[in-house]
Amino acid sequence: MTTATPALDAERLLAQIQMLGDVGIDPTAGGRTRIALTDTEKTGRDLVVQWMRELQLDVRIDRIGNIFGTLAASTPAGNQRPLMIGSHIDTVRNAGALDGCYGVLAGIAVARAYHTAGIAPTRAIIVAAFTNEEGVRYQPDMMGSLVYAGGMPLEDALDTVGTDGTRLGDELQRIGYAGDMAPGAIVPDEYLELHIEQGPVLESEDLPIGVVENLQGISWQKITVHGTANHAGTTPTRLRQDAGYVAAAIITFLREQVVAPSPDTTLATAGSIRVEPDVINVIPRKATFTVDLRDPEETRLRAAEQRLTDFLHEIAARNGVTIDTERLARFEPVVFNAALVNDIEASAKRLRLGHRRMTSGAGHDAQMIARIAPAAMIFVPSHRGISHNPREHTDDAQLIQGARVLLDVVRSRLT
Amino acid sequence: MTTATPALDAERLLAQIQMLGDVGIDPTAGGRTRIALTDTEKTGRDLVVQWMRELQLDVRIDRIGNIFGTLAASTPAGNQRPLMIGSHIDTVRNAGALDGCYGVLAGIAVARAYHTAGIAPTRAIIVAAFTNEEGVRYQPDMMGSLVYAGGMPLEDALDTVGTDGTRLGDELQRIGYAGDMAPGAIVPDEYLELHIEQGPVLESEDLPIGVVENLQGISWQKITVHGTANHAGTTPTRLRQDAGYVAAAIITFLREQVVAPSPDTTLATAGSIRVEPDVINVIPRKATFTVDLRDPEETRLRAAEQRLTDFLHEIAARNGVTIDTERLARFEPVVFNAALVNDIEASAKRLRLGHRRMTSGAGHDAQMIARIAPAAMIFVPSHRGISHNPREHTDDAQLIQGARVLLDVVRSRLT
Repeated sequence: MTTATPALDAERLLAQIQMLGDVGIDPTAGGRTRIALTDTEKTGRDLVVQWMRELQLDVRIDRIGNIFGTLAASTPAGNQRPLMIGSHIDTVRNAGALDGCYGVLAGIAVARAYHTAGIAPTRAIIVAAFTNEEGVRYQPDMMGSLVYAGGMPLEDALDTVGTDGTRLGDELQRIGYAGDMAPGAIVPDEYLELHIEQGPVLESEDLPIGVVENLQGISWQKITVHGTANHAGTTPTRLRQDAGYVAAAIITFLREQVVAPSPDTTLATAGSIRVEPDVINVIPRKATFTVDLRDPEETRLRAAEQRLTDFLHEIAARNGVTIDTERLARFEPVVFNAALVNDIEASAKRLRLGHRRMTSGAGHDAQMIARIAPAAMIFVPSHRGISHNPREHTDDAQLIQGARVLLDVVRSRLT
Repeated sequence: MTTATPALDAERLLAQIQMLGDVGIDPTAGGRTRIALTDTEKTGRDLVVQWMRELQLDVRIDRIGNIFGTLAASTPAGNQRPLMIGSHIDTVRNAGALDGCYGVLAGIAVARAYHTAGIAPTRAIIVAAFTNEEGVRYQPDMMGSLVYAGGMPLEDALDTVGTDGTRLGDELQRIGYAGDMAPGAIVPDEYLELHIEQGPVLESEDLPIGVVENLQGISWQKITVHGTANHAGTTPTRLRQDAGYVAAAIITFLREQVVAPSPDTTLATAGSIRVEPDVINVIPRKATFTVDLRDPEETRLRAAEQRLTDFLHEIAARNGVTIDTERLARFEPVVFNAALVNDIEASAKRLRLGHRRMTSGAGHDAQMIARIAPAAMIFVPSHRGISHNPREHTDDAQLIQGARVLLDVVRSRLT
């Protein structure tokens, strides 16, 4: 024990971001691919566990594969009130190096700051890496934190069948990360997550720190329009049941009518669109597309969903088609803990870093853990808002500023 | 020579339709697949040539593989003024048995009627089967008749590379149908084509005969919208360059604005639609779709194209995207020969068959041959308008009625 102050080792943090980012790297296509519970992701997990052990963290794995590294408190009472810092290390295909990893490695950097200074924190610090946040191979996304927070039965999660036909539980066993701890066994006293914004707001306002006070609700649907295939040259317009046109009219309505009443908060995206038989001179018999609706207010999100539903009935009747909808995901908006949010804001002020309160547009493990503990998030800028892409980028200086705020918030909560 | 009257052998015609329809049949998927210049299509060609030779027709193959079977006239002068009856025997994938084949085999039935009656016609009758009308493997479609009418250089057609990487000229050699006759060497005095409607009009009006007086102009374009991929949850609506939304808005405009000024004649179809990266929570960076525009009047077709083009500029500017267009095909409307059309109508009346004048919505070899000779078409009903599909169907009685009209028109032109 010394009287040194816990301080950030910025170089080590940046080096670990690069080392973890090299796992699964593809020099040809760009980016790295570390999809949850693959061999490549196991390599990333092993690295994170090794780095935790170097700091003498007590590493435990739960039954859904979440990794927890605990830096013990100076007192038994402090061990009863752990502060958790977490995120995830799995990636999408051809991802950047920051999404998720930055938050886990910044958590390790906070633990390192205490370890290096020779200070046992007044409360335990747990660094968490949650399983399968991205949901590329196994649905739903944010699975590890969802299970941890009791939002999905463990057995259902283990029985999830992936896009490649594998069972999640088998893959977890195979890579050696089926732990024995019960998910949710340790309920943190509070939870912090540092993440890149994945949007353009902070960069466009030239602010280094986002104080995330809430997180949008998300409504995902798959919509299928069943029409009738017919010859494009011989079928009069009035006799058509054109599934492609109906899909296009719905997607147009989404942007022009569903979003319109709340243009600054409601977001609507049709990311996937497919028609059958997909031939130039055949009227589509079937069109399938996805709808991603978001709003930070549950009432507004419900109203947007209702406008869409009403239009589906109207346009189906008008065009003689049938429309099926399938709910793929639905998360209500999350309001983060006010005291934690205030503390993040106070830290940014103390460090003289420009900041603003903001809403998270994307989903994060923090929204799941918020079900069982006070939680909040810190954002740093994403260059051009790009994410899930090899071109994802945040300047080193901004990454360091974010980690400094995280450490400062932790210090303020541990005194 | 006898004084018998040329009469239709209806049973033989129906039997040949079935025999040719059995070539390439797929009992599992349904329908038959006889794509131009494949081994299966060669089998179909061999059958047609055999049936022509059984009637002592003089069979000649031209350099693009078109097959011509000539029944000589009773006089040298009559041989100088041949009447051609044609269509095609290639098919799409999993096709019906009638599209094209019906017209060729009805032509053979006309020749048979004269042959069996022992009558040499006053003018030569040529039965034609044109190469690659469907354009499945080699683009453009209607290629054999297009080359024959001088609309495409022979060498360009032979050098066409198929979807499977093969060269058309090589495949023609391989199956033994690279003839030595120059395309266009015999210019017919007139051309008739009997075909199923491939649309719902005749059936819906309960009429057995369509007197086809013109054929729509066709405008095919591929439109590509280049936007920017971004996170669906974090990109404000005003900052989006959403290629999927822009494509949807154009397809909606096509139906609601391009067609609107002439709703009874202009047809617009977006048959193929694809977006990239095609992921639920990513704003599409790219959308590609096809536009099939048709109208029987060239001025209206041009006006429709112009409305689309104007909208492309407007919506590209409004959304910060770029839009490329690629012309895939453009055929002006064809007006068939008035005297032939009158004769078809007179025949239908004479045979007391319900009929109406109508426009062909689909493209046919007749539109190409109309460039070099007076031409017209006869339609019979298509059940539910279905074509390019195993469920393509016309009742036997209707097929026979159509062939009777064809024979009657030929008889009226040969006296």
